[in-house]
Parts: sequence; structure tokens; C-alpha cells
Amino acid sequence: MSYQSFPSHLLEEAVAEFAKLPGIGKKTALRLILHLLKKPADEVTHFGEAIVRLRNEIKFCRECNNISDTDVCRICSDAERDHSILCVVENIKDVMSIENTGQFHGVYLVLGGIISPMDGVGPADLKIDLLENKVAKGNINELIFALSATAEGDTTNFYLYRRLNSYNLKMSALARGVAVGDELEYADTITLGRSIVNRVPFDGK
Amino acid sequence: MSYQSFPSHLLEEAVAEFAKLPGIGKKTALRLILHLLKKPADEVTHFGEAIVRLRNEIKFCRECNNISDTDVCRICSDAERDHSILCVVENIKDVMSIENTGQFHGVYLVLGGIISPMDGVGPADLKIDLLENKVAKGNINELIFALSATAEGDTTNFYLYRRLNSYNLKMSALARGVAVGDELEYADTITLGRSIVNRVPFDGK
Repeated sequence: MSYQSFPSHLLEEAVAEFAKLPGIGKKTALRLILHLLKKPADEVTHFGEAIVRLRNEIKFCRECNNISDTDVCRICSDAERDHSILCVVENIKDVMSIENTGQFHGVYLVLGGIISPMDGVGPADLKIDLLENKVAKGNINELIFALSATAEGDTTNFYLYRRLNSYNLKMSALARGVAVGDELEYADTITLGRSIVNRVPFDGK
Repeated sequence: MSYQSFPSHLLEEAVAEFAKLPGIGKKTALRLILHLLKKPADEVTHFGEAIVRLRNEIKFCRECNNISDTDVCRICSDAERDHSILCVVENIKDVMSIENTGQFHGVYLVLGGIISPMDGVGPADLKIDLLENKVAKGNINELIFALSATAEGDTTNFYLYRRLNSYNLKMSALARGVAVGDELEYADTITLGRSIVNRVPFDGK
């Protein structure tokens, strides 16, 4: 279905704007907009303004590059957290995922991406200077690399390791292994192989 | 993945607004918003404002109930179209679909839905008065029912037929049959049956 025949320029423009979003084509965009047109005007105004306000008022924490309403985010300004353990992640979704586990009580550094030559992302595009400055201050005891288990993630881990190794830190990476709840026969061979190499002591508890 | 731990109220609000759209969950909403955050501020402002403007400035054509930038839409104000043939459709997407075929040169009437007791939609919720007023003026020669080939569509066709029959109009409905390009073995039996009953003369051209 082509859309040469939009009955309204306003509609066409709104559809074009929606269709710029990733994974949203013109057909979905039109469906979403016809939905919005059925809603009360103040609800739709609220929707549009929430987006504008978000983009104009959102801040990035100067300590960790996480999204924040304030100059320093909630996590970095929390005195009860362990500021000597720094978890390096790719983006804010990863911060939220790790926070949801309830297993980490240190602080984060959001790189804003990972090294990916295929996508034209090099070390200079990431917040590695911010990371190195924090490390150079000497208050960090341990760096945890919590990046994706992909070639790009491994490359970034390795780059960071080489660049920061001279600071004499403890560095660790997320454990790779069979996911909790997975049956062995469905685990891929590389993951299963890694989980054997990196087996952990079993203390019977 | 739950999202108890939004790092920002602005972000949380924008995600909640996006997640109100049909077929968009919190996960997709967050992905879309992180995409918007990477865009220049003026582009995002433009996006938000296009939506607000659409909702506040859009009009519905007083002649046909189609979406329009003006009181009377482009189609209804086009003197070259045949205003004596009126095509009754459910919504503006159907207008666009039919316009894209390039096969129809009459005008439309957008009902704004079809009769569907299951969804609580009765004749009074649709623009049937607008349709009857147009018909009553006596300038319409033919009504084409171009509604969905569903029970609701058939019900609406039948209702309109009964209500407007006294005006002595030619009334027609879209042909039902095997879709162009379909192989017979994959056509469903009801459609195939209808296409035999409603077979058309073959003139060898």
C-alpha cells in the first residue's frame, strides 16, 4: 500500500515523523496516529509535550553519563552505595536491567555504546575519558565490565583492559554460562564450553 | 524485565505516554525514546509538536467526514470528480487504499466505523445521518458499499440498504472473489463459492 493520497498535510507530516522511529513503518505510523486522533485533545497534547520536555530537560549525570533529572543521578548521589566498585555498561537500559536484579550495590559508568568498527563507533565516541578520569582519581577498587557477550563487547573489554591496566585495579567481567532455567541440550556449544572452562567450586550449600 | 528503576521521572513519564499507544509495550517505548534522545533537540521538538498540532488543528470534512486540513476536503472540493457516485467506507485508511487504486473518481463518505454490537458500536455512533442527508438532497445516483468483507461489514451494508432503499438509488457493493494473483487451491471455500455465484461474463478481451 502506498500513501500518495494523504487527505491532509498535517496527517502526512505526523505520519512521516512517526515513521522515522526505528521499527515503525508508514502503515504502523498511520495506525498510531489514527489512534491518537480518537483520543481527547488534552491527552494527545500531553503526549507530545512529554516528548519535547524529555528531550529538552533531560540531563546526563556528570559522574556516570546515566540519564538523570539532576546534574548527578540518583545512584551516584546515593551515599549508601559502594563508590569503590564501578560497573561499566553500554547504555541506560543495562543500568536498569542490573538494578532490577538487586544484586549490585556499587555505581555505574555508561559508555554510551561499544566499540564497533562496522558501525563506525570508535573509542573516541564513548565516555572512556570520563571512565579514565574516575579511575585516575584512585577511589575505584574494582571495575566490572558488564558489556554484551558479542565480538564488539569483547573488543571493548579488551580495549578498556589495555588502557586502564596501568592503574593497578581489580578488573572483572560478567560470568558467561548456561542461563538459569536452561536445559543443557538447548545451550549453544560455545556457551556450554565456556561454562565448563569457568566452572565454579561447588560447596554443597 | 521490570522497570522499577527508572533513572529519571521525565524518562518514566515519556515511556508511560508512549506505552499507551496500541501495540507498543514498555520495552518498545523505552527503545523508541532512547532513539529520540540521540537525535538533535530540534528534531525531537518537531516530532512532539507535529503530534500536538495534528490533534488540535486537524478537521473532519463536513461533506464526507474524511480527515482534512480545511472545512471541505480535497476530494469533496474537486470539481472534476463525479459527485453523483458516493463510496461509503469505514475509515480514512480505506479512502487512501481506494484512492491508491486510481480506479474510482467519485466521492466518499467516511462512516467512522461499522455496526458492531460486540464492540458496542450502533448506527447512532456512525455518520449515517450525514449520509442520509446527502442522499436526501437527490444529487446521488449510486451508492457503493465498500466495507470490510466481515459479518459486521455485511450487517452495516444491510442496515444502510434498508434505511436508504426508499430513495430509489442504485446501490452496489465491492465484488468479492479470488484475489488477483491467488492460486485457486489456496482460496478459501466461501470466497471461491461466492466467486462462482457472482461470475462475470468473459468477453475474450
